[in-house]
Amino acid sequence: MLKRRTDLALEARELWSESAEAETELEGVRAREEEREGYPVTRVEILNEAGVQALGKPQGTYITLDLSALARREEDAFPRAARALAGELSGLLKLPQGAPALVVGLGNRAITPDAVGPGAADHTMVTRHLVEQVPEHFGAFRPVAALAAGVLGTTGVESGELVRAVTERIHPACVIAVDALASRSLKRVCTAVQLADTGIVPGSGVGNHRAALNRETLGVPVIAIGVPTVVDGATLAADILEEAGKGELDPAALAGEGGSLMVTPRDIDQRVSDMAKVIGFGINLALQSGLTVEDVELFLS
Amino acid sequence: MLKRRTDLALEARELWSESAEAETELEGVRAREEEREGYPVTRVEILNEAGVQALGKPQGTYITLDLSALARREEDAFPRAARALAGELSGLLKLPQGAPALVVGLGNRAITPDAVGPGAADHTMVTRHLVEQVPEHFGAFRPVAALAAGVLGTTGVESGELVRAVTERIHPACVIAVDALASRSLKRVCTAVQLADTGIVPGSGVGNHRAALNRETLGVPVIAIGVPTVVDGATLAADILEEAGKGELDPAALAGEGGSLMVTPRDIDQRVSDMAKVIGFGINLALQSGLTVEDVELFLS
Amino acid sequence: MLKRRTDLALEARELWSESAEAETELEGVRAREEEREGYPVTRVEILNEAGVQALGKPQGTYITLDLSALARREEDAFPRAARALAGELSGLLKLPQGAPALVVGLGNRAITPDAVGPGAADHTMVTRHLVEQVPEHFGAFRPVAALAAGVLGTTGVESGELVRAVTERIHPACVIAVDALASRSLKRVCTAVQLADTGIVPGSGVGNHRAALNRETLGVPVIAIGVPTVVDGATLAADILEEAGKGELDPAALAGEGGSLMVTPRDIDQRVSDMAKVIGFGINLALQSGLTVEDVELFLS
Amino acid sequence: MLKRRTDLALEARELWSESAEAETELEGVRAREEEREGYPVTRVEILNEAGVQALGKPQGTYITLDLSALARREEDAFPRAARALAGELSGLLKLPQGAPALVVGLGNRAITPDAVGPGAADHTMVTRHLVEQVPEHFGAFRPVAALAAGVLGTTGVESGELVRAVTERIHPACVIAVDALASRSLKRVCTAVQLADTGIVPGSGVGNHRAALNRETLGVPVIAIGVPTVVDGATLAADILEEAGKGELDPAALAGEGGSLMVTPRDIDQRVSDMAKVIGFGINLALQSGLTVEDVELFLS
Repeated sequence: MLKRRTDLALEARELWSESAEAETELEGVRAREEEREGYPVTRVEILNEAGVQALGKPQGTYITLDLSALARREEDAFPRAARALAGELSGLLKLPQGAPALVVGLGNRAITPDAVGPGAADHTMVTRHLVEQVPEHFGAFRPVAALAAGVLGTTGVESGELVRAVTERIHPACVIAVDALASRSLKRVCTAVQLADTGIVPGSGVGNHRAALNRETLGVPVIAIGVPTVVDGATLAADILEEAGKGELDPAALAGEGGSLMVTPRDIDQRVSDMAKVIGFGINLALQSGLTVEDVELFLS
Repeated sequence: MLKRRTDLALEARELWSESAEAETELEGVRAREEEREGYPVTRVEILNEAGVQALGKPQGTYITLDLSALARREEDAFPRAARALAGELSGLLKLPQGAPALVVGLGNRAITPDAVGPGAADHTMVTRHLVEQVPEHFGAFRPVAALAAGVLGTTGVESGELVRAVTERIHPACVIAVDALASRSLKRVCTAVQLADTGIVPGSGVGNHRAALNRETLGVPVIAIGVPTVVDGATLAADILEEAGKGELDPAALAGEGGSLMVTPRDIDQRVSDMAKVIGFGINLALQSGLTVEDVELFLS
Repeated sequence: MLKRRTDLALEARELWSESAEAETELEGVRAREEEREGYPVTRVEILNEAGVQALGKPQGTYITLDLSALARREEDAFPRAARALAGELSGLLKLPQGAPALVVGLGNRAITPDAVGPGAADHTMVTRHLVEQVPEHFGAFRPVAALAAGVLGTTGVESGELVRAVTERIHPACVIAVDALASRSLKRVCTAVQLADTGIVPGSGVGNHRAALNRETLGVPVIAIGVPTVVDGATLAADILEEAGKGELDPAALAGEGGSLMVTPRDIDQRVSDMAKVIGFGINLALQSGLTVEDVELFLS
Repeated sequence: MLKRRTDLALEARELWSESAEAETELEGVRAREEEREGYPVTRVEILNEAGVQALGKPQGTYITLDLSALARREEDAFPRAARALAGELSGLLKLPQGAPALVVGLGNRAITPDAVGPGAADHTMVTRHLVEQVPEHFGAFRPVAALAAGVLGTTGVESGELVRAVTERIHPACVIAVDALASRSLKRVCTAVQLADTGIVPGSGVGNHRAALNRETLGVPVIAIGVPTVVDGATLAADILEEAGKGELDPAALAGEGGSLMVTPRDIDQRVSDMAKVIGFGINLALQSGLTVEDVELFLS
């Protein structure tokens, strides 16, 4: 079996199904399909060690929104997507009113498929200083700080170190970390958003800039929001071979060609920019109760 | 036979060789391998209609520099590459001293793999206004104008229309047009530069922003400088299948997956930026005789 | 009398009033104050040669909107401003339905106070290619092309030459040229927008990048839209002296200090960006009948 | 006496001289003029409490380089300026070999005159991760981390908080903080660089983004590097009045006009970019012994 790399729990589950005997049941994993604001939502819960073993991911809840309809740019597609994301995020956050939050955009702003995290941070309503300094106007807002954590090569400091340092000093009640992911499927690139209450585990995504950010390392709950923006060359090759009915393939045969390559949609710049905005707006709606998409537009303009 | 798309004459020749009977000779085409400043240079001349038919490209001279050594960032790699490019370009240009030139950067600055043209225009020494206005200091320079032609979607004007309009008004003795190309081979992405005295023919590259720019449409010689920055999904798939010994493949099977996808190196942003700079500097050295790379750095700083 | 530089007809009129004998009447000039969408509008018409002599500006209509309320960022301030600008622009344009237009953004994108023109071009709905290529969907739109004309130093081609070249080729029924202006008053910097049916006369604004763009040089009506973004040092000095009751001042005393200096608000980057957007949206509403601000947001997103 | 705002110790000393009785001696302050690499250097030492009172600045050494010659862009002006800055910085740093350093770029990248700090951080050779991960190649380098601290409005976290958080975690042996300053003199804008071993005291510069960064708050020596990039409106007005022989002026009369205004050279974008580069290169030469300007160019390219 070709072991393909994916950060999406729903894909890990699909891969398990493909490879497993048809009659086997996937123990320790519960999955459900729903819809929110017209967008398909898949919820995968890894309940115990059996599920952890089967899917190779930490125990927790993984929610994937399929926002492929967003690319068609229908009139209300954006506000619906932001509200759908906010609804799912609120369910995972369970934050007391007024509890402070830290939003972290991981990744390298200068590399297009890695820029979704910094972009989402740019669209976050930063209120921590306003709540402190102008409480008469902003007292009703939750204090939110935002950090585009940069990357090792431009700072010399691991994203993880930086986020830990800031978390220890400003004491948020939770951290929301946004990052680019790897997917095995081209159709999910820049269309799927995964929310997980497990934090972010290292070794995935576009770069390798991620030390573990989770409750163990930061001391507070960490919600991860991720978007697959690339598929690596080897994965594409394997998928194509399979579709073409060419059967199994030795991964070693692909390593040379595919190792340093990525596959993306041709309009990746626009798509990453769109996803960063919808995530930023979803975060704002989830963190600041009672706001509309229009309120957020006005605040950020 | 799978018909693969390439803008490089040397690849068209390779494809011909692979598909042709071993004993057949490629008539009407002359090819030669050389070296300049330590970089391999391949010169393909399409001499007559037989060559045009065989390779599917207009009659003319196509020179490809293999700059893959540039990525290793050895100390003198950049100046050597700029001088190699300048040397080959000078051979094609054959411009009388002082004759004015127009450099055109084709492509969309906002889309990374399409930004090599605008980037090269940014590195071009623009002297036309200085020669006119401050002849006592700049009289020894060739008058050079530069134009980043934008793209249809942001201007509503075809690049070709725009270049024709400007050419008719400012009357350059030649046009140098820089653009992104398509290649069939991943190893040539962001490492090969093709110079051609045929102008640019439509239907290639990253976007489809190119109306024909050649002596027929512009009335002056057009030298095209191109860099392959992506390979399309279908081409990658075919290459990988072949390497994996899976033999021939029906192109229709790939169209769905590969059609809107591109394959690039992970460090595409840096590579495109490097190639734009080396092309810009090569153009400057070819157009302004007697300058060194250091002179150009100083002029542009 | 200190001769102060202003591109605003309403300021030229104020200066005349200050310097003239109280009883003199300003012949050949008609002025009127109105309000549109809650914003003050001043209309100055220079009717004949007497008016031309008195104000030092070409014969024509000059409309200034005072958008200082926009900076307060009230909820509907932006759409009201865009509609006010569109209303005044429509009155000047008098374009037949479907007649094509060319929008030109003058100035240097890399210099903050000179970037209002290119920014407005970025916010222009470019439809020329869509109307031609997809008439079944875009047939109801007016064909609009847009051009950020760059600057002499980066192209070697005068903005005026470039605009003439493009105008001759694509034959618009009118040209709308957006540029930065000089004002004598700090309170009008980034708050006033002047529309004029006279085209743009050279020698003003932030740089000196403007050859005359008017009906004489382009062969079609030219509407100029300008925003003062700086006051020069000498003008500020004179204003301050006057306010401080220090009376008249020899301009020569200021030339040294003030010549290469500019005075701007500290939040100039944000303000230039805001004005570019409101002008772009105003142009879109004036050129494409029946659209709302929301429609434009959706088209451009 | 009009109290004018300046961050430069040498200007504070000039102001003291202008206002003081001619015969008085400035106690507790030692000043010296020198030259390094052809650039004038002024060294002001505040030796004791008398000096602190007289100049209103903390005790310590303040070195100002006059780089106005840099703007003339002579061939070796840049490397000489970088070496001069490195020489003075080394004198203040007195760092043991191999001791780690943190470079902090203060200010807002999106506001031109406040962007000198982030720009200098961009030009800093970041080596901390390389020394740790690839010691066989980078063992000879000093570990250097860099941080563009952003601004309160975009992060919700004070620069000071952020720098403290990172300093506590990564334990540098010293912090070098780069920021924009306020000057009283237009001729020093974007031409003077001040180095001080006192850290940065709050309340100066373009914005008010600076909590105190010094040995008391960070626990390690803090070298401040600052460049005046603006003069405020009130200061310009006062200078002009004085030059025009209009004598003393009530500061209240200027507050209204000048309060939110800044005065800058027209080519501020280019000048800030030049100064950021020279500071970054100076830091690199001071921190990494044995390198040349060419080595730095190659490392950063």
